[in-house]
Amino acid sequence: MEPQELRKLIASGKFQRPTAGVCSGYIQTNMVALPKEFAEDFEVFCKKNPKAIPLLEVVKDGYETSFLADKANLLNEIPAYNIIKNGEITEVVNDITPYYTKDLVFFLIGCSFSFENELIQNGIELRHVTNCQNVSMYNTNITLTPVGKFKGKMVVSMRPIRKDLVAKACVITAHYPRMHGSPIHVGYPEMIGIKDLDKPDYGDSVEIKEDEIPLFWPCGVTPQNVLTDMKIPFAITHLPGHMFVSDKKDEDFYEKDI
Amino acid sequence: MEPQELRKLIASGKFQRPTAGVCSGYIQTNMVALPKEFAEDFEVFCKKNPKAIPLLEVVKDGYETSFLADKANLLNEIPAYNIIKNGEITEVVNDITPYYTKDLVFFLIGCSFSFENELIQNGIELRHVTNCQNVSMYNTNITLTPVGKFKGKMVVSMRPIRKDLVAKACVITAHYPRMHGSPIHVGYPEMIGIKDLDKPDYGDSVEIKEDEIPLFWPCGVTPQNVLTDMKIPFAITHLPGHMFVSDKKDEDFYEKDI
Repeated sequence: MEPQELRKLIASGKFQRPTAGVCSGYIQTNMVALPKEFAEDFEVFCKKNPKAIPLLEVVKDGYETSFLADKANLLNEIPAYNIIKNGEITEVVNDITPYYTKDLVFFLIGCSFSFENELIQNGIELRHVTNCQNVSMYNTNITLTPVGKFKGKMVVSMRPIRKDLVAKACVITAHYPRMHGSPIHVGYPEMIGIKDLDKPDYGDSVEIKEDEIPLFWPCGVTPQNVLTDMKIPFAITHLPGHMFVSDKKDEDFYEKDI
Repeated sequence: MEPQELRKLIASGKFQRPTAGVCSGYIQTNMVALPKEFAEDFEVFCKKNPKAIPLLEVVKDGYETSFLADKANLLNEIPAYNIIKNGEITEVVNDITPYYTKDLVFFLIGCSFSFENELIQNGIELRHVTNCQNVSMYNTNITLTPVGKFKGKMVVSMRPIRKDLVAKACVITAHYPRMHGSPIHVGYPEMIGIKDLDKPDYGDSVEIKEDEIPLFWPCGVTPQNVLTDMKIPFAITHLPGHMFVSDKKDEDFYEKDI
């Protein structure tokens, strides 16, 4: 299926599932929408924390993309949204048209799903993909560079990688700096404040085999966490796992020079 | 100093020290010389184990290089040599002219010293360089692909790297596949058969700080180990640390596409 078709299905209410594995080869992104009074600081915050929150497109006027897709409607072409009020998720909806005002600014943020295909094609097993589970995610003690009211700690996704493939996984993912790039940490979970790998803070727990090492990548859940921690009066995000599927291909963001 | 000048000094007996830090920017290599009856198998052995024993040049006729330097004399332009008889080092000499016969084949093998400069330039401290020590080296349980009588385990060098720079170190060194490339193992020494990091099998012990992870690269000591283990009747190698300094620059072996 092409992303345009998928987004039409979503807009018509016929696709409300997670987007993992859909439109393989096309990049999927996180979405955050904020009132203008917060938007400027958030944009600087993203740019100061490019590894955790790699900004791909900002839509300041209206609600249609221009870079990631030609006029995708961000109000109803994402399968599900979180409505956040005073830092709490008050509702999950499939269409945010009723919430739209000209005051909203939309941010589309890179996602590590984009490099998983290439890891697998290079013979690197991804346990959560094999098991059809959600990736394991954890809160860490890695502090983000603060900007105004935006501050907090990085959330990471974890993938167990066979010991002899660790360097290869670092190199492959480094080619995608706008999808979080290479791991932020390799092995030794306690060094980044993770006490129990068996108990992820988000997503599913996966087995780590004896010849495997846990690798940690920054995760798109990071900004959602920041918004709830600061008790933001109003914000909208995609529902985790229910991503914006763009018209851009993985290879459009492949950087040869690393 | 240019490599040509250094090699002249060496040939005239005026430089018999280790070559670390000399002619910065030029690649240094390991050297192994074997009788013809072993040479063919050894060449295949190198090619089957390119990460441990990356072959840069083979000199089959005579004793002069043509690729790595224009007519460097391998008999006296290396500061020191090990003479190996029946698998034992019987002598260390500065000139192997008396041992030369037309039966000898020379192998020049990539060395991880070549990427250390770039690691340091990228803000990655190398403890053994800071402390002017020899790099720590260890025997492992990583089995080489055997060819004929050539078989054995990989020897690795270890460098402690700050946790947030591990992926960067993997990426930088991956650009030098003919100098061992990216690490063969990251963290967890016991997984590759190393019991005590404080007791290296070769070289010096270095401190590993609390926020650092040990990274392991294949090491040019590997073939020397194989030769002694198989009790080879006769062979000559460079004396560890006393390398062949070539006319090629590090960047000549930098591979953009990784």
